[in-house]
This record gives sequence, C-alpha cells and structure tokens, in this order.
Amino acid sequence: MTTRRRRVRQLQVGGGSGWVTDELAAEEPLEIRLDGEPLSVTMRTPGADFDLTVGFLVTEGIIAGADAIATMSMCPRAADASGEYNVVEVTLRRHRPDAAGARNFFMTSSCGVCGKASIDAVRTRSEYAVSEDPLSVDPALLATLPDALRAAQRMFTRTGGLHAAAIFNAAGDIMCVREDVGRHNAFDKVIGWAATQRLLPLTSHIILASGRASFELTQKALMAGIPLLAAVSAPSSLAVELAEESGMTLVGFLRGERMNVYTGHHRVQSASASSPRALSTGP
Amino acid sequence: MTTRRRRVRQLQVGGGSGWVTDELAAEEPLEIRLDGEPLSVTMRTPGADFDLTVGFLVTEGIIAGADAIATMSMCPRAADASGEYNVVEVTLRRHRPDAAGARNFFMTSSCGVCGKASIDAVRTRSEYAVSEDPLSVDPALLATLPDALRAAQRMFTRTGGLHAAAIFNAAGDIMCVREDVGRHNAFDKVIGWAATQRLLPLTSHIILASGRASFELTQKALMAGIPLLAAVSAPSSLAVELAEESGMTLVGFLRGERMNVYTGHHRVQSASASSPRALSTGP
Repeated sequence: MTTRRRRVRQLQVGGGSGWVTDELAAEEPLEIRLDGEPLSVTMRTPGADFDLTVGFLVTEGIIAGADAIATMSMCPRAADASGEYNVVEVTLRRHRPDAAGARNFFMTSSCGVCGKASIDAVRTRSEYAVSEDPLSVDPALLATLPDALRAAQRMFTRTGGLHAAAIFNAAGDIMCVREDVGRHNAFDKVIGWAATQRLLPLTSHIILASGRASFELTQKALMAGIPLLAAVSAPSSLAVELAEESGMTLVGFLRGERMNVYTGHHRVQSASASSPRALSTGP
Repeated sequence: MTTRRRRVRQLQVGGGSGWVTDELAAEEPLEIRLDGEPLSVTMRTPGADFDLTVGFLVTEGIIAGADAIATMSMCPRAADASGEYNVVEVTLRRHRPDAAGARNFFMTSSCGVCGKASIDAVRTRSEYAVSEDPLSVDPALLATLPDALRAAQRMFTRTGGLHAAAIFNAAGDIMCVREDVGRHNAFDKVIGWAATQRLLPLTSHIILASGRASFELTQKALMAGIPLLAAVSAPSSLAVELAEESGMTLVGFLRGERMNVYTGHHRVQSASASSPRALSTGP
C-alpha cells in the first residue's frame, strides 16, 4: 500500500472546522541487507522495493547491473504489524571487496573533503561515460515531459506528498515512472527498473525529476549513464558543477514552454532552428 | 556564500533563446568529526555550520544540549578551492559511549525493523517529553506563520531551491529562520541555534517547515522537545504515526486560511470559539 487513509480535522480561520478523510503518502523504513550484512536503511514509500534495491546498489557503485545479483528476496520474518515487508535480502554472484561504495568513501574521507574531491570520486567511479553521448533533443519535446510525468503519476494529486522520477527515450516516450516520499528513492526506483530490464547504460535517455536537482540526483543519473537530467525546479550549485565536469546536460525550471539549460547546451537544439529568434545575445 | 551565480541559457519553445544570470542555491558537503573520528557527511548549503553541527548532534541523540560540547572549530586545513570550509571538528566534555546514536541503531537493527520499532526507539531516546506540553494556539495565529517565514527568508525568491525552517514562540514571534538545500539541515540549523542559546527543550514552541513533514523532521522536532510541528505541505504516514504516539501536534497543508490538524487537536483551539461554527460534524 502506497497511501494511508486517515481522519483529519480541517480548520478554516474564522470558519469553523470539520473532519475529513485525508490520504497520506506512505513512508516506511526499508533495510537492504547485502550478503547477510546490513547495508542501508532508507525511509521510502513501499512499492517497487526490488527496483529500489537494485537502483540503490547501482547508483552507489556497488554493482554495475542486475547480472551481479544472485538472489533477492523479502525477508519473510520482517513483516510488521500492518503486513508490510521492510527488509530486502540480496546476495551477489561475486562479492565485491569494495562494496562499501560511495557512502563509505564519504564517511571516511579525510580532512580535505570538498565538492571537488567528491566530484572527482564520482567521475572515476561511474562505469559509464556520458560526455560523448550523441543525444540531441528539441526544446519542444522537453517541454512535453512534465505533463507526461504528471499524467503517469498516480498518487500526487491524492497525497500532495510524493516526488516522482521518470525515464524517457530520445523520442520522448515515457518508459518508467516511480514515486516516493524521497526523491533519491524515486531515482533509484526508475534506475533499478532499467537495470532489471538490462537497459544500462541508459545511453541517449532522459531522466526527469518532479522537483529540484541536487548533487545526489545528478550523481545517480551519471551512475546509470544518462546524458540528460531535467528538473521541474531549481538545481543546486554542486549539481551544476558535477553535470558540467561530467559532460552531462542539466536542464532546470522545465515549466510550461520555458526552461533553463545549465550545462551541455549542445544537446538541446531546436530541430527547426536554422534561424532562431534570439531573446538576447551572449553569453 | 549561500548562493552561486551562473550564466545559463534560457529557452522558450518557439521563441528562441538567450543567456541570463541565474542564482543557484549553494550545495557543499559538510563533514562533522566528533572527538577526532568522522561522524557524518551531509550535503548542505554553507552558512550556520556550527548551528547545523550542534543541531545534528542533538537531533541524533548524541548530546542533549550545547553544554556537552567542549570545543567546536572549522578544520583549518579543509578549505576547498573556493575558500569554503567544509569540515567541523567537535570535541565533547565527556565522550558518550553510545555516541553512535539513532543512525547506528537503524543501520544494525535486526530483521524486525519496521515503523513501529523505529518509533519506539525514538520515543525512548528523546530526553524530552512533549505529550504534556500545555501549548494552545489559535488557528488564526498559525495561519500567519508561513507569511512570517517567507518574509524572513532571504534566498528563496532568488534561487527557488531552498527549504526553510523556523522556530516560533507561543505568541507567534519568529525566533530563528534557517535555509538549506536539505530540509533536514534546515531543521538541524534552527534546533542547533536554540541549543546554542540554551533554549532546549523548546517547551511550548512551534517549528514550521516550508515543505513536507517526514518522519525524520518529526523525529528532530521531538528530540528538541517541540510540541507542535507545522508544515506548509503534506505529512507522510509515518510522520503522523510518530506524532500521534508521542503526543505531538502535527499540522499540515498550512496555507492561506486553511490547515489540516493530523494529531494533537487539543492544542489548536480558536480563542473566540466558545460556539464554533462547524463545517461538518464528526469524527
């Protein structure tokens, strides 16, 4: 169950109050155990838990794809009182000695930790390079993606509390949509779906975030080999830096007919733009 | 510096393109080292880093207040190329053997992890109880808080990329506002400010989130002894469960003249409501 119903007291200033039924975005912890050891706990919206698990392992650099997984199962002893299963057990075909991955790099990084260091670490760790990806998309196509995402979202209008992520191909066809209370989980879910479908790297694909673009989301997209990250809201400074250094295209504020292209401008070109009307000249 | 300026290509479908200057919310990693050991790395917006550090230590249950801290300093060897300092070193007056705190409980919890277990863990870990807090606020006062928060926010209108948190007293006076790319950081910053001002527990105070209310934000508010959490957007299911089991008041969708009271209804009472007009009867 991805939502929970609840009676809630609704108040209006000067207008009294009443009881209504509200639908809440479900949030539960998911523990991922790798080869018998606890690896992580994330607060997530139940559903697509195997996708989330595979995506997390890929975007943390622990595995390169679903082929590395020998078995994956819900821990049968771990159902809570409501019947939710909140522990996924994974065994790998071959245990990677560096399974600690990005987090542990971070957690033990010495005094010189800074944005630059973390960017370098991500660049060297990704199995896939996106800088030479030949993707080219028309702004008019990009402008249609948020509506396609919203049309495919099932829960937002009910709960108002979920982030969404979607993967599109170069023609703008929506391939996978996932929702979660955590935007990083939504990314892991769609990337994990792609890994399970043996679609990695996602060459010439687009990933869309329903909200803001952080460093972490940019990093996850890079780990899946995606050359274009589009976000409905603002990117952070480090998201832009990482995208630039990786040769990724980063589009923000993708709303209505407008968008900001922060990096990789060459991939966003109007097909009919032999003589574009310029708003202004520059840079 | 909490923002970064950048030239960005702005496109309009069918309307050409131009270069504009965009202001980005700054995001950099902050490493917290405790008694010489790396404790955590969070991606945060630089600024109020000592508040963030103290707040993190309090809300993770590692210290009960600022008195536990012997020294706190920016690591002088850790400035990055842009001159940002990204490592805070903390020493405690007395090292707590259970300094691992909530995260490690989570990370090593056995197969039975579930929402209930985590709620119990939080309830037993908080130094402060909120269930008996006598706070009572008028809905009309609550309705004024989001505007007060926005008026006090300095960056959102420029970047569109920041979460905000604010602490108010029972009279609705704003006491502290902090912004961050991460909403959990914004909470840690205001709670850390309060801890540094020796204001913990924040009896009969209100904390306001500019976005959604998650389990983690509810947990942080409880760790600071705050009896009322209000959020402009939706709460998650586990946020509501934790608030209910802790006797905390949780208000969501606090927008304009309306709000939803999910738990602890007795603290939200119209001062002039001897005979309230009911929207409907119930529950």
